[in-house]
Amino acid sequence: MIVDPKLSWFRMLFTFRGTSVTHTAFRIGFMTLSAFIVTYLEIHFDVDDKYTLTSTPFTLIGLALGIFLGFRNNAAYERYWEGRTLLGRLVNSSRSWARQIPMYFTATSPDEQAEMDEIKRQLVVYVMAYVHTVKNALRDDDPFPELETFLAPDEIEPLRGQRNVPAAMLHQLGIKLTSVWKRGWLTDYHYQTLDATVTSFTDIQGGCERVKNTPIPYAYSVLIHRTVAFYCFFLPFGIVKDVQWLTPLVVLLISHAFFGLDEIGDEIEEPFGKDEQDLPVAAIAKTIEINLRQQLGEQNVEELPKPIDNVLM
Amino acid sequence: MIVDPKLSWFRMLFTFRGTSVTHTAFRIGFMTLSAFIVTYLEIHFDVDDKYTLTSTPFTLIGLALGIFLGFRNNAAYERYWEGRTLLGRLVNSSRSWARQIPMYFTATSPDEQAEMDEIKRQLVVYVMAYVHTVKNALRDDDPFPELETFLAPDEIEPLRGQRNVPAAMLHQLGIKLTSVWKRGWLTDYHYQTLDATVTSFTDIQGGCERVKNTPIPYAYSVLIHRTVAFYCFFLPFGIVKDVQWLTPLVVLLISHAFFGLDEIGDEIEEPFGKDEQDLPVAAIAKTIEINLRQQLGEQNVEELPKPIDNVLM
Amino acid sequence: MIVDPKLSWFRMLFTFRGTSVTHTAFRIGFMTLSAFIVTYLEIHFDVDDKYTLTSTPFTLIGLALGIFLGFRNNAAYERYWEGRTLLGRLVNSSRSWARQIPMYFTATSPDEQAEMDEIKRQLVVYVMAYVHTVKNALRDDDPFPELETFLAPDEIEPLRGQRNVPAAMLHQLGIKLTSVWKRGWLTDYHYQTLDATVTSFTDIQGGCERVKNTPIPYAYSVLIHRTVAFYCFFLPFGIVKDVQWLTPLVVLLISHAFFGLDEIGDEIEEPFGKDEQDLPVAAIAKTIEINLRQQLGEQNVEELPKPIDNVLM
Amino acid sequence: MIVDPKLSWFRMLFTFRGTSVTHTAFRIGFMTLSAFIVTYLEIHFDVDDKYTLTSTPFTLIGLALGIFLGFRNNAAYERYWEGRTLLGRLVNSSRSWARQIPMYFTATSPDEQAEMDEIKRQLVVYVMAYVHTVKNALRDDDPFPELETFLAPDEIEPLRGQRNVPAAMLHQLGIKLTSVWKRGWLTDYHYQTLDATVTSFTDIQGGCERVKNTPIPYAYSVLIHRTVAFYCFFLPFGIVKDVQWLTPLVVLLISHAFFGLDEIGDEIEEPFGKDEQDLPVAAIAKTIEINLRQQLGEQNVEELPKPIDNVLM
Amino acid sequence: MIVDPKLSWFRMLFTFRGTSVTHTAFRIGFMTLSAFIVTYLEIHFDVDDKYTLTSTPFTLIGLALGIFLGFRNNAAYERYWEGRTLLGRLVNSSRSWARQIPMYFTATSPDEQAEMDEIKRQLVVYVMAYVHTVKNALRDDDPFPELETFLAPDEIEPLRGQRNVPAAMLHQLGIKLTSVWKRGWLTDYHYQTLDATVTSFTDIQGGCERVKNTPIPYAYSVLIHRTVAFYCFFLPFGIVKDVQWLTPLVVLLISHAFFGLDEIGDEIEEPFGKDEQDLPVAAIAKTIEINLRQQLGEQNVEELPKPIDNVLM
Repeated sequence: MIVDPKLSWFRMLFTFRGTSVTHTAFRIGFMTLSAFIVTYLEIHFDVDDKYTLTSTPFTLIGLALGIFLGFRNNAAYERYWEGRTLLGRLVNSSRSWARQIPMYFTATSPDEQAEMDEIKRQLVVYVMAYVHTVKNALRDDDPFPELETFLAPDEIEPLRGQRNVPAAMLHQLGIKLTSVWKRGWLTDYHYQTLDATVTSFTDIQGGCERVKNTPIPYAYSVLIHRTVAFYCFFLPFGIVKDVQWLTPLVVLLISHAFFGLDEIGDEIEEPFGKDEQDLPVAAIAKTIEINLRQQLGEQNVEELPKPIDNVLM
Repeated sequence: MIVDPKLSWFRMLFTFRGTSVTHTAFRIGFMTLSAFIVTYLEIHFDVDDKYTLTSTPFTLIGLALGIFLGFRNNAAYERYWEGRTLLGRLVNSSRSWARQIPMYFTATSPDEQAEMDEIKRQLVVYVMAYVHTVKNALRDDDPFPELETFLAPDEIEPLRGQRNVPAAMLHQLGIKLTSVWKRGWLTDYHYQTLDATVTSFTDIQGGCERVKNTPIPYAYSVLIHRTVAFYCFFLPFGIVKDVQWLTPLVVLLISHAFFGLDEIGDEIEEPFGKDEQDLPVAAIAKTIEINLRQQLGEQNVEELPKPIDNVLM
Repeated sequence: MIVDPKLSWFRMLFTFRGTSVTHTAFRIGFMTLSAFIVTYLEIHFDVDDKYTLTSTPFTLIGLALGIFLGFRNNAAYERYWEGRTLLGRLVNSSRSWARQIPMYFTATSPDEQAEMDEIKRQLVVYVMAYVHTVKNALRDDDPFPELETFLAPDEIEPLRGQRNVPAAMLHQLGIKLTSVWKRGWLTDYHYQTLDATVTSFTDIQGGCERVKNTPIPYAYSVLIHRTVAFYCFFLPFGIVKDVQWLTPLVVLLISHAFFGLDEIGDEIEEPFGKDEQDLPVAAIAKTIEINLRQQLGEQNVEELPKPIDNVLM
Repeated sequence: MIVDPKLSWFRMLFTFRGTSVTHTAFRIGFMTLSAFIVTYLEIHFDVDDKYTLTSTPFTLIGLALGIFLGFRNNAAYERYWEGRTLLGRLVNSSRSWARQIPMYFTATSPDEQAEMDEIKRQLVVYVMAYVHTVKNALRDDDPFPELETFLAPDEIEPLRGQRNVPAAMLHQLGIKLTSVWKRGWLTDYHYQTLDATVTSFTDIQGGCERVKNTPIPYAYSVLIHRTVAFYCFFLPFGIVKDVQWLTPLVVLLISHAFFGLDEIGDEIEEPFGKDEQDLPVAAIAKTIEINLRQQLGEQNVEELPKPIDNVLM
Repeated sequence: MIVDPKLSWFRMLFTFRGTSVTHTAFRIGFMTLSAFIVTYLEIHFDVDDKYTLTSTPFTLIGLALGIFLGFRNNAAYERYWEGRTLLGRLVNSSRSWARQIPMYFTATSPDEQAEMDEIKRQLVVYVMAYVHTVKNALRDDDPFPELETFLAPDEIEPLRGQRNVPAAMLHQLGIKLTSVWKRGWLTDYHYQTLDATVTSFTDIQGGCERVKNTPIPYAYSVLIHRTVAFYCFFLPFGIVKDVQWLTPLVVLLISHAFFGLDEIGDEIEEPFGKDEQDLPVAAIAKTIEINLRQQLGEQNVEELPKPIDNVLM
């Protein structure tokens, strides 16, 4: 995610940073060059009217283009915001978990106190590990290197070979919780509430998988992509008689706007990726870890993640 | 569902795969041919102005067309996404079920352990069978062949002759759960929580039936269909004086965009069907089955379903 | 609700069935005739330019018209879909009720078994009667004839003279449930869960009443109605100079689209009515009844309702 | 709220009732008159082209106007509908309250029966009083005259001097409920459920206060207001050359549409007011009172409120 | 937040107060001046047509601009309204907390009464402090000066050095609640309900952090900003031939509308800031404090916050 560098109104007009222009520069350049050639030919050789267009077809096809782009834009942003909301719920549920664990546990005898405290700590650390695993699953990274920094080898063993590692972790978390309940450290009530939090992790994770695995129907992407490209390509034929030498400038501005709109849509519709417009999944996972470490009472906790070169990953 | 083949920007301009063009090719071709004939007649016989149009009527009717298509598009995509969300909740509830069953059951005497373990397994397998039955109901397929691979004949018997097989399965699941509770293997609390999960299956299934059985009002489909067709058919009469020989090209591009928009809408508004743009209902059902088998601790579980020729069913 | 007759692309262009054209035919005909007269006068008597329009005013007022129609369309469809969602929840809650009743009841002594079974059946039948009463309330029909087929006379007595019959039924249902609980056939827990289902009936019914009783603000209807009518009426004056003898055809197509859009909105914004575009309230109520009868284990249950002449009521 | 008088298509074109025209008549008249003067001057003195406009600027500024009005319209209607949904939830929660009170109370000894019945009645009447107080708070009316018709003086005393009277009533309701629970007339469970209903009243009331106190940002209102006014004022300069003597008619129709759209938005964005388009807050409060009286078993209950001159307040 | 000063229709046309014009005056002035220069040059030196534009490019780029601004506007307002809804839920949860604390606590022996009353008071005051801390976190202010007015030094100590002070407060609140429960003053049930209220504070706070920390993707802001600026800058070249000396006036009106739309979007998309269009976070926090003080039974409570110079902060 790009953090707003708070440029002045004027400097913002000419910034490249964070505008996805690097991805669209080639296309914009191609269209502008082609517009230049068309203009040159038109002005020096005065092409027969029978082979040029007017602006009318662009007004008409603009209708379809507007529906396509407006729709895709809204749908992509809704996916982005839904992804963000799910990550926000992950923050909330993790914090609630780390609050409830120390609240609910009651040792049945004083001897168990130390053991119980260790188990409480482990349950919170397990959720930290879970959050990082969700992050890795969403970004198609191998979760095991990071898991090894949180969990003991025998905790990692049952996760190997699983088709869905974070889901398997929640299954293990349920088992851990049950063994605690069977020792009598939790009332039925509180066992229920903690289990409901595990269910909320299941729901959040399922929601993230849904957003990740089901993009906007592919046919939209193709149709939008194609309509934008043909629109920009034929545009010089339609306006060159009207605006003459300014044709390339107009094509530059219009293709900058349309390709930009298309590109942002492409990037944010898969909000968990590693594009610079994507959600800061890693920073959110780190923030949860820091919050939970402080809730555990750890000292010398890291600083919250900061944007590097205005980008928060 | 078509899985994005990640084509380069340029190749995407000319792909046919997954763009529904096969469904609209005839209509687009017809309109382009008709535009060619109109252009030929206009240019060679110079039709009296009294019988041609200008672009004005198309701008005016474009207003209605934009409202129709913009609306239908949004409504169809919302239905698609709601369908996907319901299937996602089916994934979540199934996973929670398979986590909660082993957590909650407590044998009242050691002798029952083996019997109880078998019943726990059966309850999870029953949900797998249920998920496949929902899939078959949504796609109008006969559920019984698949049911026979999961359930014993006496479990299948009460489902025959039912008007709504998956609903009947949930009724049976409630009865099974109750018999377990009456044996004292579940506390009142946990019985309640598991029953709430059955209720959530009821709600998800009801939601899917709602999306399946209540399409966008039919009069919209007819009006959109008709307005698009007449728009494209009369278009050459309106632009031929302006753009001359380029008329067929303009009609090709515009009818490609409008028929494409109409067709995608038609396909995704019934998201549980078997069109290539539809939701991968079978793959999701299979994924749930694999998740649940792993939660049961089965070895040698199948791979997750993969797209065949870029299509996930 | 009109069930999509799955016509071919071509036949759909000329269908009348289910397109509300019968409601708008007069208006469309009037506008087309008036356009014909205007064209005739213009061409034969060549009216002074001072008294004709150009297409500019139509482009300008098209802006307001687009906002009006686009807004009304979305709002009407949202109401339609909200109505459908509420009816879907009615299906879900009814099925859950019929599942939970047999699950939760436990006789305190074997002698009561037969009596308890009868009461269980009555509680499910009462919900069937309730669903039909909601249907009748939503469609402004007298509920009592149908109630008599489900309930005993002494159950109907307290409902007479009630301002809101279905609400009174839920009140009675609460009383019935309480008497069962007081006999010790239900744990506190299960009593609570069943009461929560009664509360969900209250919420669903209240939601339906809200949609029924609070239409889109009337001033919108008037303004849209009027703007569409004046737009179509003055249109020939604006385009006759451009398109000459084709004026009536253009007016036919445009008024067909706009009056159609206006009419569909009018029909679906009150989704519980008896227009052919409205929700199949009766069919849904019947489906619930059939589901519940099968859950009660009745044999020879009716078939699910089928569309008659493509319309499901 | 205006109740649809179901006029015929033709009569609806010329109705004034319920169309807010009384609020906008002056502005529309002013614009039309001004258009008349402009037209007169143009035609009789033929103003130099250097000082007139064309329709181009109106097309361009129409873009901004469309965004403004489309956005404000949707936002205002969403507020209206959210307000209605909150009132609908108030209906539901009140009915559930009146159903649950008689269900849950169990006297610990027969002597208390009469006292308990009286307290049950008071608790339901207190909610009636609460609903009317919410109504008065939303409409900035003094709640005390009406409160005196429902409550005893000692119940009203603690409410005087409160900054938020309905919130204070819920606080009192909680205290009443607790005293009942402490007498043993309610199980812990049922106490909890009734308290949850009080919490839902808190949430509904807070939602209504939110809609009432936080309008659409003021800068929008100013910008919309101003853009509409300047658009209509300058419009004759832009179209007079095209449409000549029909300029005042065009300005009349366009300003009727735009001022109408602006005015409806203004009225419904504060949905709890006393404009004729506003929600029938008083009628809903009265309906709740009647429902609750019938649930208490009172005879000779009033009729439901009816619209007076097509307006329901 | 600007409180509507209820100006007359006419005076509202010329108000500056609350319209963000101060932020955009420079840009509007610059564009108008530049339009004046362009007009002067065109009229006095009659620039060669080869170097001027027509209005066509503005119609075409208007399509992109409309999508951009329409989208940003809706997204910004949704963020504003979501922020307001979260603050509204903060009001509701705080009021419920202050109602439930006195309801649920039961002293186990009469000696404890005074101590328990003091702890009850402290728990409510702690939530007041929490609300003010959320406010300060949302506005990037130091929370400690205000905390000192509510809490004892030993309550503040554990909050120092925390990365997220309000989250740490909820953790402390959980600990306080648990110590009360362990003393037997709360049933398990009520402990649960109060803990659920703490969880709802966690969710509300997490929601506010989400809105604060994740703006609309930066690339949108840049593209909108730039497209609006270039549109307004080049506009005089496109319309000067048509409207001559009225060019600066048209540019003034159009740039006033577009820069205004851009600026309001910019302000409200970060709704918790200190711009005059932002949400009255401080007033809402103060209102909660006053509500809670009255629920505690305090006398001589402050007046509710009033707008100063029409602005509520």
